[in-house]
Amino acid sequence: MSPEEFKRVGYALIDWIAEYRARLEQLPVMAQVQPGEIKALFDPAPPQRPQGFEGIQEELEALLPGLTHWQSPNFFAWFPSNAPLSSVLADLVATGLGQTGITWQASPALSEVEEAMMDWLRQMLGLPEGFQGVIQDTASTAALVALLTARERASGYAQNRGGLQAEEQPLTVYVSDQAHSSVPKAALLAGFGQDNLRLIETDDRFAMRLDALAGAIERDRAQGRKPCAVVAAVGTTATTAIDPVRDLAELCREQGLWLHVDAAMAGSAMLLPECRSLWEGVEWADSISVNPHKWLGMAMDLSAYFVREPQHLIRAMSTNPSYLASGVEARNYKDWGIPLGRRFRALKIWFALKDQGVEGLQARLRRDLENARWLEAQVRATPGWKVLAPVPLQTVCVRFEPPGLSGEALDQHTLDWVNRVNRSGQAFITPAMLRGRWMARVSIGAEPTERHHVEALWQLMRQAAEPIEAAPR
Amino acid sequence: MSPEEFKRVGYALIDWIAEYRARLEQLPVMAQVQPGEIKALFDPAPPQRPQGFEGIQEELEALLPGLTHWQSPNFFAWFPSNAPLSSVLADLVATGLGQTGITWQASPALSEVEEAMMDWLRQMLGLPEGFQGVIQDTASTAALVALLTARERASGYAQNRGGLQAEEQPLTVYVSDQAHSSVPKAALLAGFGQDNLRLIETDDRFAMRLDALAGAIERDRAQGRKPCAVVAAVGTTATTAIDPVRDLAELCREQGLWLHVDAAMAGSAMLLPECRSLWEGVEWADSISVNPHKWLGMAMDLSAYFVREPQHLIRAMSTNPSYLASGVEARNYKDWGIPLGRRFRALKIWFALKDQGVEGLQARLRRDLENARWLEAQVRATPGWKVLAPVPLQTVCVRFEPPGLSGEALDQHTLDWVNRVNRSGQAFITPAMLRGRWMARVSIGAEPTERHHVEALWQLMRQAAEPIEAAPR
Repeated sequence: MSPEEFKRVGYALIDWIAEYRARLEQLPVMAQVQPGEIKALFDPAPPQRPQGFEGIQEELEALLPGLTHWQSPNFFAWFPSNAPLSSVLADLVATGLGQTGITWQASPALSEVEEAMMDWLRQMLGLPEGFQGVIQDTASTAALVALLTARERASGYAQNRGGLQAEEQPLTVYVSDQAHSSVPKAALLAGFGQDNLRLIETDDRFAMRLDALAGAIERDRAQGRKPCAVVAAVGTTATTAIDPVRDLAELCREQGLWLHVDAAMAGSAMLLPECRSLWEGVEWADSISVNPHKWLGMAMDLSAYFVREPQHLIRAMSTNPSYLASGVEARNYKDWGIPLGRRFRALKIWFALKDQGVEGLQARLRRDLENARWLEAQVRATPGWKVLAPVPLQTVCVRFEPPGLSGEALDQHTLDWVNRVNRSGQAFITPAMLRGRWMARVSIGAEPTERHHVEALWQLMRQAAEPIEAAPR
Repeated sequence: MSPEEFKRVGYALIDWIAEYRARLEQLPVMAQVQPGEIKALFDPAPPQRPQGFEGIQEELEALLPGLTHWQSPNFFAWFPSNAPLSSVLADLVATGLGQTGITWQASPALSEVEEAMMDWLRQMLGLPEGFQGVIQDTASTAALVALLTARERASGYAQNRGGLQAEEQPLTVYVSDQAHSSVPKAALLAGFGQDNLRLIETDDRFAMRLDALAGAIERDRAQGRKPCAVVAAVGTTATTAIDPVRDLAELCREQGLWLHVDAAMAGSAMLLPECRSLWEGVEWADSISVNPHKWLGMAMDLSAYFVREPQHLIRAMSTNPSYLASGVEARNYKDWGIPLGRRFRALKIWFALKDQGVEGLQARLRRDLENARWLEAQVRATPGWKVLAPVPLQTVCVRFEPPGLSGEALDQHTLDWVNRVNRSGQAFITPAMLRGRWMARVSIGAEPTERHHVEALWQLMRQAAEPIEAAPR
């Protein structure tokens, strides 16, 4: 592609993206296609000859029905995953520069901008100075990295001997029974095994019970196991429940366990001083993950991983072959995670701050928190509707419980009305299980979501859920 | 950022990138900054207020000295990592659409375009129809995923019981002593431990010796260990040596071992039917990784991972929490790797083929192979210079060996002249160890590299290395 064609097609795509973002409100939020429909748009075999980019806008239009519009103001599903236009430009520059971070020498700028931006982020989150940051792709990977590091520290770096499989005492890991699925997955991938993974009971606020954790640790020690790591959730996926970080940190220090704080979603809220009490004690965590690619708005994939003592991470992850020797004393991020190569992702942090400043980001987060409180109040004030969990952040868990409906019939009703909302195309929310019963999760925080979108959603939910009350049973 | 500002700044950045690419030839290839110089460009604290993008070009210019220009025609270091302009546009669209792939429902288009493009890639590589593909970030991650899957298959899915740590028989892994550093790293992260990782001797072509492998497997079985996986290199990092895939595959089938073929670099060559004999027998591999983000030119991060029987991968990697239940029968790539979320990376494959077609990509690969053969011939024909390894692909390993210089003195001379080449800014090559001695690796294949660039490099190398002959000793 010549620079001229790049400019021509580039301008056209910039225009198309701007236009796509502008009409998001009109598009059905959840993709309405059937499996296979999008795949069928492509020839079964790759083109032998160049095809050019003449009809590219039309070809992209054809994909639109296959998109679930995460950037829509009516997206309330899972968690927000904001990709603001500043991030689009940052990725444009990142790929345009074509850097590959392996060692420092391979791209000093990539390495040092990441170092600088991760330190900005550390300050924005209110973390103490000792913490050092590195960008991982996702919180799933961060959880795996944390548990691998914990495993190695607990075993005295068994990887240099017989590995995990040669350890005499089984190492055990503790997570809340509300932990994100990626956390048990990470424990299994790290080789601990289901038998050595404890899902700790949660209290009526869905937070890990300290007494249950302490009991489990004690039982494991009594049975000859070696407790290794605790993963605390600051903002669980189902309800954004907050595990008691200070208490967990004290227990972990006392017991010599690694504490990983998974604040993938809720971490963004720590830009707000008024939210920081939620993870009080976090300065004693060994590792922390926060996903700026969720609510904060630094586009996928940008998961921030902070460690209090980088030497453990580096010892578990480092490699030093001759072709990567640089003779330079500088940070080599290859030794801070699993992949060797890395993209210039820190540009997204820089561009977000150029665009918004800390204050702009804070204002948006506060807007979303207020919208969630407004919705919570509406639900609480409406007969038949229940708020099922505390709302510390921007996710509201609700159920419509008409008189006489319970058990599986209630589940079916919940799934039905959520399905009606989603199929309408006017909004997209997530059904999820809580203590064995289906509920609806409304997760507020897409970048363009304003109060009137939340108001419209609430009307839509009521319309979809309530008619059954009037129907004969 | 308003759509208007996005357009204005977007156009300007498109222009700036086009201009950056156009003047790459004039920029020193290897970054010449000292550690800390780039970091010092940034304020220690993040900006509280928006700053806007008025001076963005100047700010990016200030980063340039901190870049090692991977897209330069004079980049011959490590392996090429091409980010053609078509990929820049693909990433622009990917972030512009702001999709997050988790389940199929989260973005049917992301999922199905990836499925379609990975099947195109499979055909382009000449892999049989049964193979299924998924995009991983890097070959390092792919190697880890392969060894985790192998570990679980060999242990009868021990993750559902006591994990790797509860296994009676130690599982062992076999890799060539020339394997990329990421492969031993993956084995250690997967928990096998150094004691159960065998670095198998290589022959005089730097390829894994089948007899040495068979012997190691036999010894391990005799000692009560359980051989689990072999990682074959198709294109080692030091010399692009090719392990004997057919023989390894036969041994692995006979012995029930997982065979992972790491063709991160050399895999791109398989677009050329004349190269496919290099990995003959690959259809019996259990997993294969090929990095289109290297030579092929689909920008970082795009590592293609193919598996012959996806059920093993899915069984090792799947999670099914309620909030990810979709009720739809379709491929969920979350169960095909470590991270839950994924970017819309398959657009880069699509755009590369629109731009070049298979034939265009093939022509470029052939150009690079011919350039390497030309350089090899020059080196062989020049007194004092040696080609140190076979040149099956585009990497030429050389040393200048003046009479009377050997051992550490020769090493010092090699490092000195390579350093002079790199500090000149006119080209960038990699020093690396081969059998305990330093050499220079010339890796041809940056997208804009033409014959005259290779000719200029060869002159530069001679000027940097040869003067010592005339100097008094």
